[in-house]
Amino acid sequence: MSDIKRIDISSRMSQVVIHENKLFTAGIVASDPNTDVAAQTGQILDTIDRYLAASGSDKSKILTANIWLSSIKHYEEMNEVWDTWVDESNPPVRACVESRLASPKYKIEIQISAVI
Amino acid sequence: MSDIKRIDISSRMSQVVIHENKLFTAGIVASDPNTDVAAQTGQILDTIDRYLAASGSDKSKILTANIWLSSIKHYEEMNEVWDTWVDESNPPVRACVESRLASPKYKIEIQISAVI
Amino acid sequence: MSDIKRIDISSRMSQVVIHENKLFTAGIVASDPNTDVAAQTGQILDTIDRYLAASGSDKSKILTANIWLSSIKHYEEMNEVWDTWVDESNPPVRACVESRLASPKYKIEIQISAVI
Repeated sequence: MSDIKRIDISSRMSQVVIHENKLFTAGIVASDPNTDVAAQTGQILDTIDRYLAASGSDKSKILTANIWLSSIKHYEEMNEVWDTWVDESNPPVRACVESRLASPKYKIEIQISAVI
Repeated sequence: MSDIKRIDISSRMSQVVIHENKLFTAGIVASDPNTDVAAQTGQILDTIDRYLAASGSDKSKILTANIWLSSIKHYEEMNEVWDTWVDESNPPVRACVESRLASPKYKIEIQISAVI
Repeated sequence: MSDIKRIDISSRMSQVVIHENKLFTAGIVASDPNTDVAAQTGQILDTIDRYLAASGSDKSKILTANIWLSSIKHYEEMNEVWDTWVDESNPPVRACVESRLASPKYKIEIQISAVI
């Protein structure tokens, strides 16, 4: 019994946890992985927007974003979508590195923390 | 002088830091790396259980888990141990990606944050 | 409008965010990437020192450090600089793994959180 709220729980992990005034997401991947990096990035950012909105937050309140690309050669393609989406007056800190992901279809995974 | 408690300090890093009501572990690796992924995962989760217990917390209060596998081909083998261990009513958010680790013997490294 | 302070903002990301009494940096890379791992590590730690000082904090109050090396073979060379720099009575938790970084010139990237 603690004051932790968990959203979209499977037996393995939650997609979101909320404690006090902070929200943390899982490493979010594309809902349809049979798409290119730009589309996967857009899907993930849509998912993040939905989780933020459901918690009374929004992208202007993101603190940190960690991005893993299955290949760093997709860096610019990811950034084109990111740059259009991010609140350019209130961008989070960010770290983006290359790592292979759970399935070879996944080209990008994003994990954020935010204030709610 | 700050209100940060540190556990298992070497001159390079702490294994745990506690600030206010939050605990953060280092990237924990296996105590005996001459073992397979399943055994290394079990050892790491045992270590995490001990650190949580020593701080008056437990696995139901983990907020986030970041897992690095030296090869993503070990994903299912790690998950078999993880799924047995995790509190399936209170699972953390999680991100699991592939990265080579400090020693080639290490097949998995896990870092968590939790409420105490 | 939230109580988040952001430092060195570009339209893509901030280099530092501060919320309540916590500071989070971006994944910091070398100011001059045309240098070896030791020099890049020193540059990054200098940058971190400056951000901490500007926020009224210092390296004794770092909670977590995540380090990505473009090649894990640079682990010892990085550690020589890290070990000289870190507050050995108050070291953070740390996780260091291998990931390729945004530019092949970057050999190391460090992201920290600290209490201010």
